[in-house]
Amino acid sequence: MPAIPKPTISRLCKIYSLLEELEDKGQLKLSSNEIGRRLGVGSHNIRKDLTYLGETGTTGSGYEIKKLKDQIAESLGFTRKRKACIVGLGKMGTAILSNEMFFSKNFDIIAGFDTNINRLETLKIDIPLYPTYDIPVVVKREKIELALLTLPGETAQNIAEKLIEGGIKGIVNFSPVVLSSPDDKVYITNIDIIDEFRFLSALFTLEKKEADNAG
Amino acid sequence: MPAIPKPTISRLCKIYSLLEELEDKGQLKLSSNEIGRRLGVGSHNIRKDLTYLGETGTTGSGYEIKKLKDQIAESLGFTRKRKACIVGLGKMGTAILSNEMFFSKNFDIIAGFDTNINRLETLKIDIPLYPTYDIPVVVKREKIELALLTLPGETAQNIAEKLIEGGIKGIVNFSPVVLSSPDDKVYITNIDIIDEFRFLSALFTLEKKEADNAG
Repeated sequence: MPAIPKPTISRLCKIYSLLEELEDKGQLKLSSNEIGRRLGVGSHNIRKDLTYLGETGTTGSGYEIKKLKDQIAESLGFTRKRKACIVGLGKMGTAILSNEMFFSKNFDIIAGFDTNINRLETLKIDIPLYPTYDIPVVVKREKIELALLTLPGETAQNIAEKLIEGGIKGIVNFSPVVLSSPDDKVYITNIDIIDEFRFLSALFTLEKKEADNAG
Repeated sequence: MPAIPKPTISRLCKIYSLLEELEDKGQLKLSSNEIGRRLGVGSHNIRKDLTYLGETGTTGSGYEIKKLKDQIAESLGFTRKRKACIVGLGKMGTAILSNEMFFSKNFDIIAGFDTNINRLETLKIDIPLYPTYDIPVVVKREKIELALLTLPGETAQNIAEKLIEGGIKGIVNFSPVVLSSPDDKVYITNIDIIDEFRFLSALFTLEKKEADNAG
């Protein structure tokens, strides 16, 4: 099978989440039109994305949700749970840790890290907590593959390097800095709510400019 | 000037955040190579993105950070602060509200909403709080343009409709469901940490498959 382009991988992950949501609600089938509408993407693109999975067995009434979900899981490696950790246990980090959805799906958050040792002692959290200088050892020992960073900006790059030292494979950066991979050994994505606000306000500003120019 | 493609708009927002970060550190100039490296994008793409801004006045030593930042702000409408609100004041919502960065940049969160009236009475937050049934009235009255949703999944679509009724222009959805726009009047982006974890694990799974096939 040909290599799957990154934008397709990204959309397949979103399709997987959607299928999971609808399966939980008891829905059995779904059309590419419906997927496209829910994701804000043309149904043609969705059908093209799904060709990377091989035979998806659509019928006139759409895709079977369970089967399609299994095929995506098989292709993208969601068939086993992966170990993850969270670095930074301030308000944001602990809010995420207290969200049960993180313990029920494809990932297990099995360790938390913070630089503040006093904070580690007072937090009431049901997973093992460690100071950040233990990151390389713990990540290696526990075979942790993924990390979520919820840190003040200035420390994020330094922490990323400790995680890489431990052999982490992927980092989701929720800290307010653009984090870049120091080498090719690790994948990083940055989530930034302010960036998303900016993106949306750019979209409606540009739309208005175009409407003003056209009028 | 031609219409700016959405992926370019998205990257310009990230470039803007990076420039802001470097400006705060006192840096004056930046090359397209450096921007590309930090964002994980080829410098050729970055230079192409920047052509949409018109004359950017690069010299041998790179772009002037302040000037480039101002040009992006001018093009994408970041020259004035925009009003935003947050809906859902559980642990995640209040963690975000307590993060000072949201009050210092291009956005002012000026209202919070929650369905739980008892919770509204006990929260210690310095912005006006309202029950969710007031959303249409408050959004319209205060001319709120953007909303951040941090809600349990099942209520998000219903809340989105109340926001649209009030005239909201953009929604960042941080709830664990894929939220779709019921019409073309509003832009929506979905942030999902689980999706990001899935995307990263798909990337390194596929990389391993390819290496295994090649070996």
